[in-house]
This record gives sequence, structure tokens and C-alpha cells, in this order.
Amino acid sequence: MIQANDPKLTSWIEVEKDSDFPIQNIPFGVFKTKDSAPRVGTRIGNKVIDLNALFVLGYFKNLPFEGSDFNTSSLNNIMKKGKEGTRELRNRISKLFTSDFPDLKNNEQHVAQVLIDIDEVEMLMPVEIRDYTDFYSSEQHAYNVGCLFRDPNNALLPNWKHIPVGYHGRASSIIPSGQAIHRPKGQKKPPTEEVPVFGQSNLMDFELEMAFFTYEGKPLGDHITTAEADDYIFGMALFNDWSARDIQGWEYVPLGPFLGKNFASSISCWIVTLDALEPFRVAGPDQSNPKILPYLEYAGNKHIDINLDVFIQPEGGEENCVCNSNYRHMYWNMNQQLAHHTVNGCNINNGDCYASGTISGPNEGEYGSMLEISWKGTKPFKMNDGTERKFINDNDTVIMRGYSEKDGVRIGFGEVSAKLLPAK
Amino acid sequence: MIQANDPKLTSWIEVEKDSDFPIQNIPFGVFKTKDSAPRVGTRIGNKVIDLNALFVLGYFKNLPFEGSDFNTSSLNNIMKKGKEGTRELRNRISKLFTSDFPDLKNNEQHVAQVLIDIDEVEMLMPVEIRDYTDFYSSEQHAYNVGCLFRDPNNALLPNWKHIPVGYHGRASSIIPSGQAIHRPKGQKKPPTEEVPVFGQSNLMDFELEMAFFTYEGKPLGDHITTAEADDYIFGMALFNDWSARDIQGWEYVPLGPFLGKNFASSISCWIVTLDALEPFRVAGPDQSNPKILPYLEYAGNKHIDINLDVFIQPEGGEENCVCNSNYRHMYWNMNQQLAHHTVNGCNINNGDCYASGTISGPNEGEYGSMLEISWKGTKPFKMNDGTERKFINDNDTVIMRGYSEKDGVRIGFGEVSAKLLPAK
Repeated sequence: MIQANDPKLTSWIEVEKDSDFPIQNIPFGVFKTKDSAPRVGTRIGNKVIDLNALFVLGYFKNLPFEGSDFNTSSLNNIMKKGKEGTRELRNRISKLFTSDFPDLKNNEQHVAQVLIDIDEVEMLMPVEIRDYTDFYSSEQHAYNVGCLFRDPNNALLPNWKHIPVGYHGRASSIIPSGQAIHRPKGQKKPPTEEVPVFGQSNLMDFELEMAFFTYEGKPLGDHITTAEADDYIFGMALFNDWSARDIQGWEYVPLGPFLGKNFASSISCWIVTLDALEPFRVAGPDQSNPKILPYLEYAGNKHIDINLDVFIQPEGGEENCVCNSNYRHMYWNMNQQLAHHTVNGCNINNGDCYASGTISGPNEGEYGSMLEISWKGTKPFKMNDGTERKFINDNDTVIMRGYSEKDGVRIGFGEVSAKLLPAK
Repeated sequence: MIQANDPKLTSWIEVEKDSDFPIQNIPFGVFKTKDSAPRVGTRIGNKVIDLNALFVLGYFKNLPFEGSDFNTSSLNNIMKKGKEGTRELRNRISKLFTSDFPDLKNNEQHVAQVLIDIDEVEMLMPVEIRDYTDFYSSEQHAYNVGCLFRDPNNALLPNWKHIPVGYHGRASSIIPSGQAIHRPKGQKKPPTEEVPVFGQSNLMDFELEMAFFTYEGKPLGDHITTAEADDYIFGMALFNDWSARDIQGWEYVPLGPFLGKNFASSISCWIVTLDALEPFRVAGPDQSNPKILPYLEYAGNKHIDINLDVFIQPEGGEENCVCNSNYRHMYWNMNQQLAHHTVNGCNINNGDCYASGTISGPNEGEYGSMLEISWKGTKPFKMNDGTERKFINDNDTVIMRGYSEKDGVRIGFGEVSAKLLPAK
């Protein structure tokens, strides 16, 4: 077992019941305060831990890190140290903050330099993302979309159960939780029109996804197998793949989604390491009918049980839960996605982002987009305030939260939240 | 007129007739020698000019550059100075090497530090590419593909003449001219098989494209108009969008090309500035039927006349010209592509790469891919050595060359060349 995951550990930092951030989590993020430049941190309970301060104070002695790894505006430098490096770092942080290890706790001056209240920090974009790929790996989502746009008897396309279908997305417009977006404008062709028109998207949607971030991969031309994939995955975040359905519908044949997606994607700011999620591994679905090709086979449990909820909050109103899903509902897991992505020799880089595709569970109430929830606008969602939603309204905030829980330990992601402002 | 473009200029460096690199070109690239680390250079005739050496010797006084802009392994730093900065730099270089300005010429010691024979340098990847987008903007290519896979009477999809269709591609696997690639492996479903199989691609193709590289854009949410687009474009290169047709055919519905493309794309190493190409502007096609939307309209000549040739060279054999095309055959120009890409608020970054899509001319002999040249394998191309090509064979080298010519001035790109090695 990875030392920092021990469910018996407790911290001398107070952690509220149901916190996403017990000492078993130790996620990584980038923050600033009103007085400081961006730097790398972690979090226990409601305290942000300044890793640059810990480094300067000598608490990372004998670890393979230098000051510029923490006194910087992205996690890319610590990710360059690979799985072993970041694991050692997480284990060291765990040790410094466990109840049994009072050295730091008892040094008030050091504690004052290292701990910051969560309310006093602004969380920033955690990773400088290189390439970004979006998969399409939830069977229920692919089935629902197939039913809505094609035929329930033939909902999955012929390749879907053979290939973890994916496409390249736009890295430049991935933004951190909290940053508002504007309703995009673009070209669309409403069914009532003879020719396309230009205007704001009227069918704004979220997509509930999880993203993972990679370490440096192998050289161009080499392949990462399903068995090797874990070693190339640093950690995960919540991911809202904002989608303008009317723009997407007109543009996407034959080369896939483009302006219907690339105006913004929002991610949660704490990257939870794959190490921290190991205790929550679960089995995936049967993949014998049709039988998958050998390069996609894998050993052991490679899916992860992560509860996922989506909320819509109108301006000044309360949160409405519109979806309870779970990351275990994926047909294709991350190992299969990476093995597929690299089987042709495509190289991956430190800081790449790979999103899951919309994660829909098998039942109503578990669908991960308004397209599915409102069944293409035919079943509006009834909000607590009496209004209805087919898609997202101006000034609505969309919030996604997620956590794993087992043996009394809850490892969470916090949230990804973004307000949809009116079109400019 | 931009000073460095003056057709009357001559250089004190010898320039052979039909050289791609007269003093009116002044492209930018990154090179190393056996004794030196990567640095930024330009080229006149067969001499590479070490811009770091020029900077150190004080020849860039009063320009907005510093040493780290040249003593580095990519053009991204000089591109950060924007259009004005790189234009001033090009004008200064032009002045230093014109016949009328003997200061540098007469300083033998300086000349020895600054000029290097082209044979003594290795050209490297010129730009650290952020996001990469591939368009699909040649009408003849889209028509040919439509004929081959759908119906000649209905070859263009309904959106094609309304939208500069594009999709996001993989930046990590864009490689410089000269770097060989391996035939990729992947999943495909031959028409003779009931289920997909895994194996090497048997339908390896090139796509003749041009790419442009951008300066830093506007913030997320803002739009770059067709009138503004020129100010955001640094320069251009030749681009071979390698394609594995069998992998692509099975995977691409519904989200577009992925592993059929992302194993490699090759670019030429000298980035020719948009400034240097200004004299070769030409009018584009009529876009009144159907009429394009106002945000895609543009003023003036925004297409560019660039002769483009493709050659296949078998191992130990001679070059066979398989295509003569021209960049003027584009339906959508770069200004329209950038205006479309950002109309939804998508942000662009310094170092982004945007490729044109396959550039096919209206006649046989002008098609920019083997798919079209061999008409899906039904019309094999006859090589000089008596062999035939439907697609690219192992150990074939694919070479693309391009240049503009007018008023006795020829501005060229050199070449992009890559050998296809057998599958690993």
C-alpha cells in the first residue's frame, strides 16, 4: 500500500467530517494570495499548505525537488519528476502533517509560514496543458446520443465497442473553476431556416467529465501498454466540457466538434493523484461481446468509483441537483484510453490533459448533460424555483462535485464551478 | 511597401538563380552545428546567419530583443514581440546584408562569427507548437473526397461552403523536415473482415498542406476579425499531414480523425514571414453562391500564389513528381480561418499552428494526396522505375517544395521531407 493512503492516519490539522481533503488526499494545486505570486500547494481540511514555504524551510530534504518546482505557476515542474518523484513528495507531506509527527506542528513560526486559510487564497489553473484529448467512453452517454440523433435500435456506432473513440480538443481555452464564461456566438442552422445564420448559441450545455493529466511519455513511435499506463498518469480533476449544441450540430460533420466546444472547458483546481485514488478501484464492464482486441485488454481493477454530482444554480437562487453519476460507469478506462492513444506511436507529454467524455449512468437522474437530461429539450428539468431548464440559462452557475469513499476515508475533488454570462 | 521586400535589393552574400532564399525572404528557423547549442537563425542563399551572434556583436541595437530571444531552441520568444517586432527585425537583417551596406561585410572577423554554410547546420523544429488546428479548405480536395466516399452529384457536405471546416489536431507529433517516421499500427476494419483487426496501416498517404503560425492573440471571449487576422500571423511553412487511410476510415465517425493522423505531421524548417509573402497576394474564389456570412467577408486580396510540388523518392531511386498544386486554390483563406476559429471567443496563443487541409488544384496532376492521385487505389501512379504507387511504400521519401515568384523575386520554403520506415 502507498504509505500516504493509510486509512488510520489522522492529521494535526483539523479536518471536518465529509471534507474532501483528509490527510489521505494530499492533492496538488497552484494558488496565490493577495500578497504572493503563484506557487504550488496542497490542502488538508480548510488549510492550504504552501509547498514552496515547506521547501524553503528544509522539510523536503533528500527529495528530488528544487525551489523552482514550487515557486512557480503550474504543477508541470513537479510532474517532470514522474510517478516516483511525486509519490515521494506526497508521502513526505503526509508524514509532516500526521498526528504522530509533531516537529512541524510544534514550530509555531513555521506553521504560520506554511498554512493559509482556504478563504485567503485564489486557486489558479493547476497545469500548463500541452495537448488535450477528449474521449467518448461512457456507453450510456453514447447510447443516449445515438437514440436522440439516430435510432434506439442502432444507437451505438459500429466502432464504439472496439475503439475508445476520442478526438483532439482545444487546450488554450481550458480554464480553472470559478472563471465565468460568456455564451458563445457562432454559425448554426436552425431546422426552421433554409440557410445558416449567425448568432448566440441557444442550446448551451455542460458535459460531466473527469480528466487525467500525464507525466512525460515515451518517444514518438513507441507505445504505452495498458499495464504501463498507471505509471504515466499523475492525477485527476473534474472537467466540464461546455458544449454549444446548435453550433456543434451544424459544424461537426465530417471532422468532429470544433467551435461548439472550444470556447471553454472548466476544470477543478486540485489535482487528486492517481495514488490517492488507488483504494477506490473497481471492476469494469464485460468486454467480451464484442471481444476487444488484445492491445486493449488489461489486468486487475482499472475503473474507479467516484461519485459525481452536477448542480445548476440560478443567479441568487439555490443549487438544483440535476445529475448523480459515477466515474465507474465508464466502458473504457484510462489505461485503455492511453494504450489506444499511443498504439500508433503518438507521443504524450508532461502536462497533457485527457478527458473522459460525458459520464452518464444507466438510469434517468444519472445523465451527464442537459441534452440527455431534458431529452433534447422534450423533458424540461423542473427547478426548485418553479422555472424549467432544457439547457443552461444566462447567469446560471454550473457546479460539479466528486468524491470517492471507502473504509471511512473520503477523497474528494472539491468542485468545478463556472457561471454562464450573457453573450458579449 | 515593407522595406525588406524591395525587389531591387541584392545581397553581398551570393545567391544562386532559383534559390528560395534571396535577401527578400529572410525566413526564421532554429539550427545547431556540431559545436553549438540550438539558436535562432535566418538564411540568405546557402548561408545560415546566426542571429544570436549578430545580437551579441551589437547589430540589433535599438531593437526590442534580448539575448535569450536568439540563444534558444524555438522562435517563440521572437514571436512574442508581435508583428511590429519581427518586422523591425527582418528589416534590420535585410539592411545588414544588402550590397549597399558594407559595414558587416567588411568586418571579416564578424562575418566569420555570423555566417555558416548550410551544409554545416542541422535544422531543428522551429516553433514550440501550442495548439494545432487542421482545416479542410480546398474545394477540389473536399469535392474529390466526397466523390470517392459519397456521391459526385452531392460531393460537398451542406456546411462546406458556409464554414471553413476544421478540427483540432495533435501538436506533440509535429516533427521537422528530415525526421523519418515509422509506418503506424492500429485498428482498422478491412471490407473483407467481419470484425476489426490490428496491424500496420497499408494505406499510408501524405497530404500537401501549408501551415501558418500565430502570435499571441486576444483574451478568451474576444474575436479576431478577417481585417485583423494578418496582424496575428507570423509566417508559414510547408506541412505534410501524414494520414493512415485505413485507420482513419474505421475510427473517424462521429468525432473526426484521430489515430489516422496523430502519429506524425512533418513541417519545413524555415518559417517564411507573412510579410515576405505580401507581394504574392491574389484574389480568392467567388463566395456569393452561397453567400457567406458577414463575419467571413474580407477586403482585398487575401489568398497567396505559392507553387507547390510533391515528390516520391524510392530508396536509392530518383524523385518522381506526383503533384503540382498551388496555395491559391484555397476556397477559404487564412483570414477567414482565423476569424471563424475565434468567432466563438476561442483564444489563440503565440506558437499555435494552423494547417490548410490538403491543397488540390482543379485538374488531375494537381491533387494533393495519393487518395486522390490514385483515385482510392483505382489509378496507380506510374513511377520512373516502372513500379506503381497507390499509396506510400516503406522506405519511400515524400518531399514537398514550395515557392512564390514575381518581378524576378522568388520566395521559397525549401522543403519538407520525410522517409517512411517500415512498421516497428
